[in-house]
Amino acid sequence: MSQPILDLTGDLVTLTRALCDVPSVSGDERALADAVESALRLLPHLEVLRDGDAVVARTHLGRTERVVVAGHLDTVPPAGNLPSQLRGSGQDAQVWGRGTVDMKGGVAVQLALAAVVTEPTRDVTWVFYDQEEVEATRNGLGRLVRNHPEWVTCDVAVLCEPTGAGIEGGCNGTLRADVQIHGKAAHSGRAWLGVNAIHGAAPVLARLAAYVPRAAEVDGLVYREGMNAVAVRGGIAGNIIPDECVVSVNHRFAPDRSVAQAEANVRELFDGYDVVVTDAAGGARPGLDHPAVAAFVAATSAATGRPPAAKEGWTDVARFGELGIPAVNFGPGDPTLAHADDERCPVHQLFTCFAGLRAWLTS
Amino acid sequence: MSQPILDLTGDLVTLTRALCDVPSVSGDERALADAVESALRLLPHLEVLRDGDAVVARTHLGRTERVVVAGHLDTVPPAGNLPSQLRGSGQDAQVWGRGTVDMKGGVAVQLALAAVVTEPTRDVTWVFYDQEEVEATRNGLGRLVRNHPEWVTCDVAVLCEPTGAGIEGGCNGTLRADVQIHGKAAHSGRAWLGVNAIHGAAPVLARLAAYVPRAAEVDGLVYREGMNAVAVRGGIAGNIIPDECVVSVNHRFAPDRSVAQAEANVRELFDGYDVVVTDAAGGARPGLDHPAVAAFVAATSAATGRPPAAKEGWTDVARFGELGIPAVNFGPGDPTLAHADDERCPVHQLFTCFAGLRAWLTS
Repeated sequence: MSQPILDLTGDLVTLTRALCDVPSVSGDERALADAVESALRLLPHLEVLRDGDAVVARTHLGRTERVVVAGHLDTVPPAGNLPSQLRGSGQDAQVWGRGTVDMKGGVAVQLALAAVVTEPTRDVTWVFYDQEEVEATRNGLGRLVRNHPEWVTCDVAVLCEPTGAGIEGGCNGTLRADVQIHGKAAHSGRAWLGVNAIHGAAPVLARLAAYVPRAAEVDGLVYREGMNAVAVRGGIAGNIIPDECVVSVNHRFAPDRSVAQAEANVRELFDGYDVVVTDAAGGARPGLDHPAVAAFVAATSAATGRPPAAKEGWTDVARFGELGIPAVNFGPGDPTLAHADDERCPVHQLFTCFAGLRAWLTS
Repeated sequence: MSQPILDLTGDLVTLTRALCDVPSVSGDERALADAVESALRLLPHLEVLRDGDAVVARTHLGRTERVVVAGHLDTVPPAGNLPSQLRGSGQDAQVWGRGTVDMKGGVAVQLALAAVVTEPTRDVTWVFYDQEEVEATRNGLGRLVRNHPEWVTCDVAVLCEPTGAGIEGGCNGTLRADVQIHGKAAHSGRAWLGVNAIHGAAPVLARLAAYVPRAAEVDGLVYREGMNAVAVRGGIAGNIIPDECVVSVNHRFAPDRSVAQAEANVRELFDGYDVVVTDAAGGARPGLDHPAVAAFVAATSAATGRPPAAKEGWTDVARFGELGIPAVNFGPGDPTLAHADDERCPVHQLFTCFAGLRAWLTS
């Protein structure tokens, strides 16, 4: 197969569809990364770098600030929703298909801007990375941070994940823990010889049901926390009193709390039980008080007409948060349609994001 | 392989070990059933019948009463505990190995008595059946009841399941039900958009933990009931608020209650929740007031020195209970060692059961 050609200076919808029509399920991004790299190498104002299937392109204009604008090239597997389609017209026009929302619409905006904004007022590093939709250890942005930290060094980062073309600052952290309840096995015909671990889980679930999650204001945005059982498992046979029950809890915590504080919160709630943390990732503060972020908000709010909001879910902005770099999410598409069979992105949001970012990079 | 020869009139320990040393995991009882049938056909005082791998042998002496003495030929799979071994001596002698307790010790007692009690005072039907250790639909005794009800017709039945050589009358019934808790799925990063079904299970588990099971006296024996969660399942992914949680409950109920009453009890306890009964089998009254059972108790108590007790677990005596036939359990071996890797049966219990049953059949 000949390499697909991407026209970065043509129509934004055509570019979005061209990106979608090169399938790039996580781990299989080579063809798309090659196409992105080739297109960027035609632009003389950019230095182009590559690590695996991640592509980085950056200006060197000696500006006082450098910003990263990042997006991932991979998608979850298609569900019969490729090739992409353009349906509707005017304000109702939408691009349908896998990746339109998460997040080739955002990647199209990045690529179009990389081509046309040849003299940005802030030096720009455009980052296109692989394997965001799979386990964290494979994440291409994480790999860049490990292998080439200087490639992603900046004053502020924008991640073009779908936000419905609004600014969503920072993100909550997430922690998973198993709460273990122990008992003593017995035949259920002689239950009094055992201790039922599932019955012992009653207070654990009651504490969860009664828990009132905090809403925390961080840098002017309000983050809603959560404390939820996401799994419960107990019992091995229909005639056995179970000697173990495990309640898996997912704690989402505002970015004013560290992972250690979140863990302490979980341990306090389940005091008296064995708690094993299985997974944790800190959040990211929105950093709206940072001058570069304030400038971003001012420029894009003019384009979107919307004030910034908190990002509730965990996103890769947290990787910048770990580096002490303020980061925001800003991209086309309704995030609740990500991964959906009817994934689709309004065309006007592509242009809103394009306009907002261009205003910021040229003001 | 030549067919194993069983010597029914020799030493009881040797016979027990010979039975154990013909492996007969449920569904694979053919070799043992053939050996049992062949040995019984050598006895001129018995009519021998066969259905699949169940063997029935009976006297036709025109007695006023007929009794069934039944046992199953199958075992759970061996756990490196075959061939059998004889360890210790005197009162400490035990036969070790798979099936010694559940229940080839009892089958050995049956076969030895079938051979030596040629003129019982009650007509006897000896029943040896297959597939007791697996799902109820495969049970060989159930199949005999369906295919040849006249083969198992009797005034009283004795099941030689292990009771530690004491009389255990009747059995509890058992009912399994799934209690379903419904919620609404959501991403755990936006938990407030969902309803957590696992949290909703808290009151269900609290009711179980607070439940005080009844102890019911039935025909002079006390049956302890039970109400236990034997499984709990909920959650599909670490970032999803689960929309369903299912608590599987096992209710063990005394034989003064019907299955319908037991179900009503479960539905009352979990009022407000969806309850689906998945499995149910009634118990069996001990029938100690029945003259034939009273005679059995009198004869065997002299041999065992112990009064009758209630059988807590569910056993195939309930199949006779369904037919309105009083039934008791009486067999060698500690029932808590059934299925254990260190399964072992005291030799003296083999002789106690042999003596008790012979006294009854000849008095």
